[in-house]
Amino acid sequence: MTRIAILGATGYTALELIKLLLRHPEAEIVALTSRQEGNPPVAMIHPSLHGRLELCLENLTPQEVVRRAEFVFSCLPHGASASVIPELLESGCRVVDFSADYRLNDPEVFLQWYGEKHADPKRLGTVVYGLPELFREKIVGASLVANPGCYPTSAILALAPLLKAGLIEPEGIVVDSKSGVSGAGRTLKLTTHYPECNESISAYNVGRHRHTPEIDQILSTAAGTKVEVVFTPHLIPMDRGILTTTYSRPRGERTEETLLQTLRDFYAEEPFVRVIDHLPGTKDSMGTNYCDVTARLVRGRVITISCLDNLIKGASGAAVQNFNLMQGYPEATAL
Amino acid sequence: MTRIAILGATGYTALELIKLLLRHPEAEIVALTSRQEGNPPVAMIHPSLHGRLELCLENLTPQEVVRRAEFVFSCLPHGASASVIPELLESGCRVVDFSADYRLNDPEVFLQWYGEKHADPKRLGTVVYGLPELFREKIVGASLVANPGCYPTSAILALAPLLKAGLIEPEGIVVDSKSGVSGAGRTLKLTTHYPECNESISAYNVGRHRHTPEIDQILSTAAGTKVEVVFTPHLIPMDRGILTTTYSRPRGERTEETLLQTLRDFYAEEPFVRVIDHLPGTKDSMGTNYCDVTARLVRGRVITISCLDNLIKGASGAAVQNFNLMQGYPEATAL
Amino acid sequence: MTRIAILGATGYTALELIKLLLRHPEAEIVALTSRQEGNPPVAMIHPSLHGRLELCLENLTPQEVVRRAEFVFSCLPHGASASVIPELLESGCRVVDFSADYRLNDPEVFLQWYGEKHADPKRLGTVVYGLPELFREKIVGASLVANPGCYPTSAILALAPLLKAGLIEPEGIVVDSKSGVSGAGRTLKLTTHYPECNESISAYNVGRHRHTPEIDQILSTAAGTKVEVVFTPHLIPMDRGILTTTYSRPRGERTEETLLQTLRDFYAEEPFVRVIDHLPGTKDSMGTNYCDVTARLVRGRVITISCLDNLIKGASGAAVQNFNLMQGYPEATAL
Amino acid sequence: MTRIAILGATGYTALELIKLLLRHPEAEIVALTSRQEGNPPVAMIHPSLHGRLELCLENLTPQEVVRRAEFVFSCLPHGASASVIPELLESGCRVVDFSADYRLNDPEVFLQWYGEKHADPKRLGTVVYGLPELFREKIVGASLVANPGCYPTSAILALAPLLKAGLIEPEGIVVDSKSGVSGAGRTLKLTTHYPECNESISAYNVGRHRHTPEIDQILSTAAGTKVEVVFTPHLIPMDRGILTTTYSRPRGERTEETLLQTLRDFYAEEPFVRVIDHLPGTKDSMGTNYCDVTARLVRGRVITISCLDNLIKGASGAAVQNFNLMQGYPEATAL
Repeated sequence: MTRIAILGATGYTALELIKLLLRHPEAEIVALTSRQEGNPPVAMIHPSLHGRLELCLENLTPQEVVRRAEFVFSCLPHGASASVIPELLESGCRVVDFSADYRLNDPEVFLQWYGEKHADPKRLGTVVYGLPELFREKIVGASLVANPGCYPTSAILALAPLLKAGLIEPEGIVVDSKSGVSGAGRTLKLTTHYPECNESISAYNVGRHRHTPEIDQILSTAAGTKVEVVFTPHLIPMDRGILTTTYSRPRGERTEETLLQTLRDFYAEEPFVRVIDHLPGTKDSMGTNYCDVTARLVRGRVITISCLDNLIKGASGAAVQNFNLMQGYPEATAL
Repeated sequence: MTRIAILGATGYTALELIKLLLRHPEAEIVALTSRQEGNPPVAMIHPSLHGRLELCLENLTPQEVVRRAEFVFSCLPHGASASVIPELLESGCRVVDFSADYRLNDPEVFLQWYGEKHADPKRLGTVVYGLPELFREKIVGASLVANPGCYPTSAILALAPLLKAGLIEPEGIVVDSKSGVSGAGRTLKLTTHYPECNESISAYNVGRHRHTPEIDQILSTAAGTKVEVVFTPHLIPMDRGILTTTYSRPRGERTEETLLQTLRDFYAEEPFVRVIDHLPGTKDSMGTNYCDVTARLVRGRVITISCLDNLIKGASGAAVQNFNLMQGYPEATAL
Repeated sequence: MTRIAILGATGYTALELIKLLLRHPEAEIVALTSRQEGNPPVAMIHPSLHGRLELCLENLTPQEVVRRAEFVFSCLPHGASASVIPELLESGCRVVDFSADYRLNDPEVFLQWYGEKHADPKRLGTVVYGLPELFREKIVGASLVANPGCYPTSAILALAPLLKAGLIEPEGIVVDSKSGVSGAGRTLKLTTHYPECNESISAYNVGRHRHTPEIDQILSTAAGTKVEVVFTPHLIPMDRGILTTTYSRPRGERTEETLLQTLRDFYAEEPFVRVIDHLPGTKDSMGTNYCDVTARLVRGRVITISCLDNLIKGASGAAVQNFNLMQGYPEATAL
Repeated sequence: MTRIAILGATGYTALELIKLLLRHPEAEIVALTSRQEGNPPVAMIHPSLHGRLELCLENLTPQEVVRRAEFVFSCLPHGASASVIPELLESGCRVVDFSADYRLNDPEVFLQWYGEKHADPKRLGTVVYGLPELFREKIVGASLVANPGCYPTSAILALAPLLKAGLIEPEGIVVDSKSGVSGAGRTLKLTTHYPECNESISAYNVGRHRHTPEIDQILSTAAGTKVEVVFTPHLIPMDRGILTTTYSRPRGERTEETLLQTLRDFYAEEPFVRVIDHLPGTKDSMGTNYCDVTARLVRGRVITISCLDNLIKGASGAAVQNFNLMQGYPEATAL
C-alpha cells in the first residue's frame, strides 16, 4: 500500500486520477491540496466523488505533504510544480509531475517556449520522460517522472517507431491534432464557454503551442537527428479524446504494410498501444488507457492516425502506469 | 420572378436551399421531387417548414418538371443527376447541379473515383464549376453550373490565390479537413448514428475521398501545373461547419504578411470571402454564406485555415449565389 | 428608416438582434454600447460580424445615445436597464427592454424575487408586456415595451389560451422547462464551462427562478384568477432552444381535440405560433421566430409541449416583432 | 468463477455489460450471440473491445448456450427473450433478462402495452424485479431476474420511499424524464440520426411509453394502493444519462427536510444510491452505478430529482449488481 498526495486537486486531471486510484488496491489517497479557502470536502468541488472519497482539500506546505505521503502526483501548473518538487524529492518522496516543468532537457528551450526562467534548471536533462513505451526501464527506478503532455503522447506513439526504423524522413513532419475541450482545463475562459466552443471547430496557438518542443525532443531522440515538427492543435466540441493525424515523407520505397508491420512489431508487447488496420475514432479508446494507432500511405505521403483519451492515456492513466512501474506494481493495475 | 423546381428534396441541402429561397424576392418554388410514396407534404418530411411552404413532394418526370419550372436545382445523388439533366437542358431549363456529375472535366477520372461510367460524358469539360470567386464570368452566361463540393470550396478558396501568385509549391500539399455530420447526408448509417459519432472524432475515406480529384482539378488550373493533394477528411461531432487546414511549402522567401496580403487582394471585391488576421472558428460563419480564410508561416511551412458552413457556402448558399448570377439578380440576394 | 442604438451589445441576445436588424430594410444601427475599454470594433467582440457591421462598442451616456438614436434596444441586465430607460423615454426615444425591469407590475414582487428595490417603481403597471399574441394592440402605441423572458414566452403561449377558455384548472400547474446553454448568457460561470455542462442535464434554481412571477402574472391575467405555477428549469447541452412541458388538470370533461382546436383557433391569425399535431423538437424552430405548440390529454392530465428558439422568439426575434409593431412596419419584417 | 453467455451482444447495453464483466474477477465470458452473419469477432462490431476480448459473435441455439454457460444475460428484445429463457432455466442456467418480458406481473397489461401476447405468461408474477434497493432478498435466491428499465429505476428510486412512508399522495404523480440517446438503442432510426437529434430536445411516446406500466406496478406495491403516473420521456442530445423530475402532492404538512431525511434513512445502507442536498447533474453519476436523488418542496408540491447513467445503473450495472447478488459475490464487485 502506498500513501499518496495529490497536489492541485481541483482540476480535471486530478479528478480522473482520483477515480483511477480509487480502483487501485495498493493506493491510499491521504492528502489533496489546493488553495481553495475553507478546506472544502473534495465532493463539494467534484460532485461525482460524493460518497467515494471523504478527504478535504487543504492548503498544505511541502513539509506537511511529506509527513503524510510517500508518493506525490503534482497536478500543479508549470512553474508551481518545479518550485515544490525539489523539496519533496529531498524528503524521500517519489513524484509524478503532470506539468511541463521536467519534460524538456534544456532550460533555454523552456525559457523560449514558456517565457520564464526555470526554477530548478540543474535537474533538467536527468528526469525521465514518462512514456513507458519508450522509456520503461528508466521509469522503473525513477524517483521523479515527467508525465508527458497529451498531444505529445499521441504524436510520439505514432511517429517514434517509424523514425527509429528509418521509414520516414525526419524533416517536414506535420502534426495536425484535434482535442476535446477538457484538455483546456477547468479554468474559465471565453474560448471554452459552452456557447462559444460548442458546435464549432477552431485551430489555436498555431505555431506556438508549448507541446511543440516536447514532441521535437522525443522524436529527435527516436530519429537520432534533429526533428522540428509543424504542430497545429484544434479544439473540438466534445469532452475528451485526441485524434492526431501526421503527414511525413517515406524514406525510400515503402509499402503501407511495412509501416503497419513496423508499428505492430514495436508495440507487440505493449499493454496499452493497439496497432489497428481500420481507422479509429476517439470513442474507441474513451475512458481507457489505450492509444490506437494506424498508418496509411497516400500519394507518396505517410499518414499516421492515433487516438487516445486525453485525460487517461494523455494524463492520469499514464501517471498511474508510471506509478505502477515506479512502485513495482503490475503495470496495468487499475487501468 | 423565377419558377423553381428542386429535385431530390428530402435531404439537408434541399432543406437549406428551400429556406434560403423562401427569403428570395425573385424565387418561386413550384415543384419538389422525391421518390417518397404518397406525395407527402414537404412539412411532413422537414417539420421546420411547417406553415412556410405548402408544396407536396412528387415523383415527377423531367417533362413534368419542365412544364412547371424554368430553373432546376438538382439535389439528386451523382449518377442520377446526369441521367435527367440533359433532358432538362434541352427543354430550356437552367440547372444548378449539387452532385459531382458535372464537376470533373475528364470521364476517365470520374470512372476512376466514382466507379461507374459517366452517363453524359460528352458534356464534361464544357460545364462551368460554380465557384464565383474563380469563375464568375462563365457562371453569368451558363445554363448548367456544377455546384462545388463542400470540402473543395474550403480548400480551393484558401489555396488557389497562393498557387496563382506562385507563393507556394504545387507539390506535396496536404489538406486536412474537419466537417460536421450534416455533410454525410440524411441517409441512415451506423457512422452517423448519434451514440456512435457523438463525442468522437475519426478520419474517414483516407486517400480515397471523392472530393480529391475535384480539388486537384481546380488547383491545377490555378497553379498552371498538375496538383495532386493529400486529402484527409475527419468527422466532427457537430451539425455543420468545415474547417480545413492546409500545409504547403513556400516558393522562395515569403513572409506571413505577403501571404495574407495576397489573399486580401485576391478577395478584395468578393462579398462572401473574409480574409482575417485572427484564427477563425466554424461558428463565425455558421448560418452564413461566408468563407473565412487566414494564413500562417510556421517553421518554413505555409498553413492556411479556412472555415465555412458546409450546407451554405459549401452547398445551398453557393447554389443560390450561382442562381443569382445566372439569372441576373444581385449576387447576394437572400444570402 | 429608424436609427437604432443597442445598449449592452456584448452578449448573445444583442448579437442575435444585430443579425436580425442587418436584414431589416428599415433599421439602421447607429450605436452600440458597452463598458468594454478602448471602444473595440464590434467584430472583435463578435467575430461572426466581421465585414458585416463596422461600428465600435462605446461607453455612451444616455444623452449621447439619444442624440444619435430614436429607438433603443436595452440588453442591459436588470437594475441597469431601469436606471437609464426613464431618461431615454423623456428624451423621446422608444425603447424595447430585454431585462426583467418592466415586466412585473408590482414593485413588491420585484423586490421579493430580485432582491433589490426597483429603480423606477412608479412606471410599473403601466408598461406593456411585449407578447404580441396577447397584447398586440397595446404594443402598437407603446413607447416602452418589456420584452418577455424566454421561459415565460414558451409557457404562456401554451397555457394562456387554455386558461382563457377555461379548459384547465388554474391551480397546481407544473411548468417543466428545458433550455439550451445560450440562455445562461455570455458571462463565464463554472456551470456553463464546456466540460461541466456538456453531456449532462441538470435542474437549477428549483423553486426560485426569477421567471416564475412573470409566468404567474400573465397567466393570472389570462385566467382571471390568481395562478401560481411550479416552475423547474433544466440546462440542456445544446446551444439554443427551449422545450417546455406543462402539466395541468382539465376543468370538466375535455378531449384532446378540444384542447388542440382551442389552440388552433386562438392562434389562427398569428404569424409566429404554429399549433401542430405532432410532437415538436426544438430544432424545428431553431433560427426562427416560431413557437411550436401542441397538447395531449394523458390519464386525465393536460400536457402541453411548446418549443422555441430562446434567442429569437424567446428574446431578439420577439424584440424585432415588437419593434415592427411599435414603428408601424409589417410585423414579420426581418423575421 | 462463473461462465457467462450474453445473448444479443451487438447493442449498447451488451457492450457496457462486457466492459463491466472484464473487470470482474469471478466472471468469464464464454459466449456472445447474435444473428450477424459470418461469426464476426466482437471487436469488429464493438471496436472499443479490440485487444480486450477475443470472442466471436455466434448464432447459438439455447442448447449450445447452456452447454457452455451457467449464467446468461439476455440483451434480446422483448418477445425474443421470453421465447428462449424458459429453456435456459430448465437446463439450470441462471438468467438476468434486460428485456421487459418478465417485469410485469400481468399478461393482460403486457398485451395492452406491448401489443402482443406474452410467450411465457404463467411465469409472470413469480419473477423478481431486479431492483436491489427494494427487492434484494428475493434477488439473492433467484434463478431469473427481470432487470428494470432505465426510466423506471430513476423514477422508482426517487418516489418509492416517499410513497412507502406515506409522505406523498399516490394520485396525480407526474414523471418528467430526460434521457441521452444511447437509451434509444443501436438500431438506425431517423430520430437518432445525428443531425436530427443533435442540438434538439423533443418529447416522445407521450402517454404511451412502455415503461409506464412498470413504474405503475412497482410504485403501487410501494404505496400499497394503485398508482398511475403521467410519464413523459424526452430525448436529450447527449450519449448517456437520465434525469427524472417528478411532481406530487405532499400528504399532510411536510417539510423539505422530512422528505430528504426519509430518503437518507431509506438508503442509509445502500451502496449505490446517494441522497444529496444539492441539485445533481447527470454527469455526476456518468460511468458509475450510482443513482443520485434529492427532493424539494415548492409551493406545496413535492419535487424529486434523480440522475443515473442509463447504461449502467439503468441497465448493465444493475445487471451486474443482480448477478453479484444471485451468485453470492460482494454486491459492488466490478461496479
